[in-house]
Amino acid sequence: MSSVIGNKIKLSVFGESHGKAIGCVIDSLPAGVKLDMEKIYLDMSRRAPGKDKTATPRLEKDIPVIISGVLEGVTTGAPLAMIIENTNTKSGDYSDIATTPRPSHSDYPAYVKYGGNNDIRGGGHFSGRLTAPLVFAGAVAKQVLEQKGITVGAHISKIGKAADEHFDMNNIDKELLESLTSKAFSVISPDAEIAMRNEIECARLSLDSVGGEIECAVIGLPVGAGSNMFSSVEGELSKILFGVPAVKGVEFGAGFDFCEMLGSQANDAYCIEEGKVKTVTNNNGGVLGGMTTGAPLVFRVAIKPTPSIAKPQKSVDLNTMEEKTLEIKGRHDPCIVPRAVAVIESAAAFALLDILS
Amino acid sequence: MSSVIGNKIKLSVFGESHGKAIGCVIDSLPAGVKLDMEKIYLDMSRRAPGKDKTATPRLEKDIPVIISGVLEGVTTGAPLAMIIENTNTKSGDYSDIATTPRPSHSDYPAYVKYGGNNDIRGGGHFSGRLTAPLVFAGAVAKQVLEQKGITVGAHISKIGKAADEHFDMNNIDKELLESLTSKAFSVISPDAEIAMRNEIECARLSLDSVGGEIECAVIGLPVGAGSNMFSSVEGELSKILFGVPAVKGVEFGAGFDFCEMLGSQANDAYCIEEGKVKTVTNNNGGVLGGMTTGAPLVFRVAIKPTPSIAKPQKSVDLNTMEEKTLEIKGRHDPCIVPRAVAVIESAAAFALLDILS
Amino acid sequence: MSSVIGNKIKLSVFGESHGKAIGCVIDSLPAGVKLDMEKIYLDMSRRAPGKDKTATPRLEKDIPVIISGVLEGVTTGAPLAMIIENTNTKSGDYSDIATTPRPSHSDYPAYVKYGGNNDIRGGGHFSGRLTAPLVFAGAVAKQVLEQKGITVGAHISKIGKAADEHFDMNNIDKELLESLTSKAFSVISPDAEIAMRNEIECARLSLDSVGGEIECAVIGLPVGAGSNMFSSVEGELSKILFGVPAVKGVEFGAGFDFCEMLGSQANDAYCIEEGKVKTVTNNNGGVLGGMTTGAPLVFRVAIKPTPSIAKPQKSVDLNTMEEKTLEIKGRHDPCIVPRAVAVIESAAAFALLDILS
Amino acid sequence: MSSVIGNKIKLSVFGESHGKAIGCVIDSLPAGVKLDMEKIYLDMSRRAPGKDKTATPRLEKDIPVIISGVLEGVTTGAPLAMIIENTNTKSGDYSDIATTPRPSHSDYPAYVKYGGNNDIRGGGHFSGRLTAPLVFAGAVAKQVLEQKGITVGAHISKIGKAADEHFDMNNIDKELLESLTSKAFSVISPDAEIAMRNEIECARLSLDSVGGEIECAVIGLPVGAGSNMFSSVEGELSKILFGVPAVKGVEFGAGFDFCEMLGSQANDAYCIEEGKVKTVTNNNGGVLGGMTTGAPLVFRVAIKPTPSIAKPQKSVDLNTMEEKTLEIKGRHDPCIVPRAVAVIESAAAFALLDILS
Repeated sequence: MSSVIGNKIKLSVFGESHGKAIGCVIDSLPAGVKLDMEKIYLDMSRRAPGKDKTATPRLEKDIPVIISGVLEGVTTGAPLAMIIENTNTKSGDYSDIATTPRPSHSDYPAYVKYGGNNDIRGGGHFSGRLTAPLVFAGAVAKQVLEQKGITVGAHISKIGKAADEHFDMNNIDKELLESLTSKAFSVISPDAEIAMRNEIECARLSLDSVGGEIECAVIGLPVGAGSNMFSSVEGELSKILFGVPAVKGVEFGAGFDFCEMLGSQANDAYCIEEGKVKTVTNNNGGVLGGMTTGAPLVFRVAIKPTPSIAKPQKSVDLNTMEEKTLEIKGRHDPCIVPRAVAVIESAAAFALLDILS
Repeated sequence: MSSVIGNKIKLSVFGESHGKAIGCVIDSLPAGVKLDMEKIYLDMSRRAPGKDKTATPRLEKDIPVIISGVLEGVTTGAPLAMIIENTNTKSGDYSDIATTPRPSHSDYPAYVKYGGNNDIRGGGHFSGRLTAPLVFAGAVAKQVLEQKGITVGAHISKIGKAADEHFDMNNIDKELLESLTSKAFSVISPDAEIAMRNEIECARLSLDSVGGEIECAVIGLPVGAGSNMFSSVEGELSKILFGVPAVKGVEFGAGFDFCEMLGSQANDAYCIEEGKVKTVTNNNGGVLGGMTTGAPLVFRVAIKPTPSIAKPQKSVDLNTMEEKTLEIKGRHDPCIVPRAVAVIESAAAFALLDILS
Repeated sequence: MSSVIGNKIKLSVFGESHGKAIGCVIDSLPAGVKLDMEKIYLDMSRRAPGKDKTATPRLEKDIPVIISGVLEGVTTGAPLAMIIENTNTKSGDYSDIATTPRPSHSDYPAYVKYGGNNDIRGGGHFSGRLTAPLVFAGAVAKQVLEQKGITVGAHISKIGKAADEHFDMNNIDKELLESLTSKAFSVISPDAEIAMRNEIECARLSLDSVGGEIECAVIGLPVGAGSNMFSSVEGELSKILFGVPAVKGVEFGAGFDFCEMLGSQANDAYCIEEGKVKTVTNNNGGVLGGMTTGAPLVFRVAIKPTPSIAKPQKSVDLNTMEEKTLEIKGRHDPCIVPRAVAVIESAAAFALLDILS
Repeated sequence: MSSVIGNKIKLSVFGESHGKAIGCVIDSLPAGVKLDMEKIYLDMSRRAPGKDKTATPRLEKDIPVIISGVLEGVTTGAPLAMIIENTNTKSGDYSDIATTPRPSHSDYPAYVKYGGNNDIRGGGHFSGRLTAPLVFAGAVAKQVLEQKGITVGAHISKIGKAADEHFDMNNIDKELLESLTSKAFSVISPDAEIAMRNEIECARLSLDSVGGEIECAVIGLPVGAGSNMFSSVEGELSKILFGVPAVKGVEFGAGFDFCEMLGSQANDAYCIEEGKVKTVTNNNGGVLGGMTTGAPLVFRVAIKPTPSIAKPQKSVDLNTMEEKTLEIKGRHDPCIVPRAVAVIESAAAFALLDILS
């Protein structure tokens, strides 16, 4: 069990970076949902590389071809399968890494686990390219959620030292989320974008890479979705979020800031607003006891710097068991964070659709 | 699906705080494992309340009674069921909260989800008391892991402003972990304990509570356990960790510090040490591509302050839909973090046993 | 994974025949269901031994004690845990079988699988006694189904050469099913009961046992429950039915009679009856393409003769690897079929509740 | 959850009869298995239609294209995805059935379940064509099993009144199974083939169809695979077997014959043969207590007659709710049983590989 997720709606992702194609199957989607393909293409282009200097100059034409489960634009209820052909693959660049694991990549544990049989070209099934089918699945999930009045949106909250303003967790409107999901470089504050692009350019010029943080919000959720203990909203979301390469931390609401808070500061008091129960604050990020509270669901993920950097690095030769210096060739993102925004939204959308099904 | 977890080994937790008993069933444990009950009792006592002023003065005699799956101290391979009778329950204290949700507790979404049928006495199935069966299951899992040369240990890394030193992530020995798991108040530095107890006492005296952070390490893991994408070590661990009440963040290795790092700082270079592949640093916390690297697995969780505080709080009456002031009676922990250490270790141990089965 | 079943509602069964207790946990039951304990006791007594000469004279007082998930007789939505204490166990009778596997029992493969660590007293976790918690779970499931207008009932359709009349598959009323579920020896025709009791008595007097068949029907199901391929109603039902000891065959509708039929004989034509779509016949037993059709769901299971017979049998000593003659002592059912009726109903009820949740 | 199966190895099947393509994803296959494509093509051709008069004259060129998970003929450990393009589809033939359900097909419950959105052309996702990916997955599974010394083979044991001889359940050799799996019309006795072909021809000439039975055996299994209760070998196998369209019954060993047997006739006594534990008979079909015994695993499935027959049939118009006569056009198998042999073998192979993983 590795590339399959979901309890009621199951997503099975397949493909290798330099193989014939990548794709996914989404099983048990509801029938009768009209899909807006333009919205799906938009999300996929937000994830796709080659848009500007912040990303790898590779040009992936990520055109998803639906091969089942949709008839005349409407879901049939049968498994929705989609493939994306791999067209722009330069396998020659990766020959060196077969027995010389790249630091902080999956190469070494994968070599041990699969006995050297895994496809290492471009990272194979471990490639960040495999997030493209996840974005597709998430874009489909978003459209089903939208019919229930639920909107998902995320922004880059930090790259290196440059930070965007955070969501006002108790007060997030649909317009803000929609403006974020329409951007290639999703930030709330235009100033933050300038500072972030500067961080990325500095990293790029020094043959390095830089990490960052993404903050995601979901509004319109009903009260009481999810469950306590082992099917918590936080647990289900984090399980899929940690499946996104480079994610190394997940926090909900005040998250790690809770560690220094007092209960009287942290607790979200209740009030009545327009005849409805609301919370005065939303430090819990819209989840209590593993269940949604009706307040915006807010979480943040930590993204580590792209491990593929052009600077020479220390590694070892797994055949000779000798230390050696590795120089990674190929085209790589100095910062993966801008492209990861649509991926994080998608992971959240899929997990929530599964919870609500 | 709410209180069941595990892919190959399944844990089913049951019980309500003020019901007859709480307990669990562990299905598909290996046969032939000799259980050391003393070690199990020790972990359960680390979680149990009433030890000193940092915790609630309630005296729970958490004596786990094994009712199946063990014959003459050895696992039979059949489901291991365990119950703990509830003896010290004062139901009268909780009558007020039936329709007045306590801020930051599960009361409100649970009321909506279960239509008012859930047992609200003492939090019912949402009570932190339900972590006792999880500690039992984790203590059993630890013994199976120990036979494979794997050791789990955690410490309080922060309470309020008081911080313990962190693990040296690339260099954690068994002695350190064993010393931590033998303590009722698990810290590395004795000075940290003094500062932390001070934070807790301040919170207690001001009728408040305080949050904290727990850092956990696992050593002796093989290379290549877990899987990329949706069965990652990080994902499986976080799913169960977020099942522990009050956990609001999980990070692995450098975690959220990655956001500000460059790739050249973050990457864990490889070297050869005594003929074996090692990493020079361990910023990835022992996991790459969702798989274990052989380096120590290190993660941290954020624990929010106990929501039950004696200070008056704003809430609402769900019947009359009017705002009201709530004063929570009963006996509560000013800080749950010291007791949660054994819970976090247990969650990790169970998840890892499942991954390795 | 062995004694846990269910996709949305999970049942975890535990216990060993001669251990402290047996029981189960039902996770994710709906909240707010008022349980009629008398109906539960009735089903459990139908399964219980010791009623007359057709069964073992052991007296099990199968009193289920609910320890969580029910408050003032109503489900809370939290896991429902139940235990039955084992009181009447004579362990001395079973000493011989430790290394001498009883023919057609699980002894031999269990010995190999569990390395001799499994509890062999009374069959341990493999004992037919473990169907008591399943009957409990099924009795609860029946009550939830009843609220949806669904009724389950079964009868003994064959014991040895003696056969009851079969259901008229397209025309089964609630009264018939309720009369069957109120009987200790469930048959449609009183003459069949006499012939069947005669078969059992003959087997008993010759120190032998005899097999049989149970036919079960479920009425009131909606159209379109279940799914094609791997979540078919037939597949989900058979998975749990084969979990009942001694079940060796399952067939739906015409079942194995289909093998000799022509399409024109087998097909269930459609008609309109009182403005509704009906089938003229019901050879498919209420399932098409894995989904319910609205017609009565009808299936049959084959039950092998109780393997424990008093006649001497050939076996081997697993220590010395020599052949030997085995004489099974203890008290055994000459025919398990009458007691299995409530078990089969329960398995069906639980599976259907899970499908419909 | 409908077209996904497996606990440790997951199979996700997708596609619709007249859509772009059908296919499957197999997740968590072991790495390093060299695949013999010729053997896979052979199994697929055994299932494919158009070979002779017993089957539909449609010519499906079922050429499976592997698009991931295999590198230079060897499995990589990543998900193995495969697609088969749909080329020979005549959609015009099916226009009538949109609102007139074909008797004994899934049309009616599918119409209700999917609200009329499901693709009804050629049966859509419910088409028997979807067994092609299952055969592919089973053919892969067979090759992994073969490396463990396990062989699967099946034959047509009955068509209408014509019966083949049954397996000698306690004595099945590899040569017999291999001879069966090399045949397009798999029977043990050549005389049976003549009689069966005659039954099929009679049905075809009378615009009718005929049912049958398939008997399958698996040899070389270890002792103790599977588990009692809800993960029994019988339960896991039957769950996938009932996912094969037209299967309406499954029995193991003596199966429904057990109903009339005495324990002394049914029990499989043990003996020592060449220093090993054997059973004298194998009425239990190689499974006891849900676990394999080391004796051949033997089971039978009942296959109902193809519901698509050219004879006029009674049905209803779901729009007007009036009764009407339906004449099914298109090309259909008078008997699906010969083509189903490879499907049943495949279902068994996949289930067993999952159990043994």
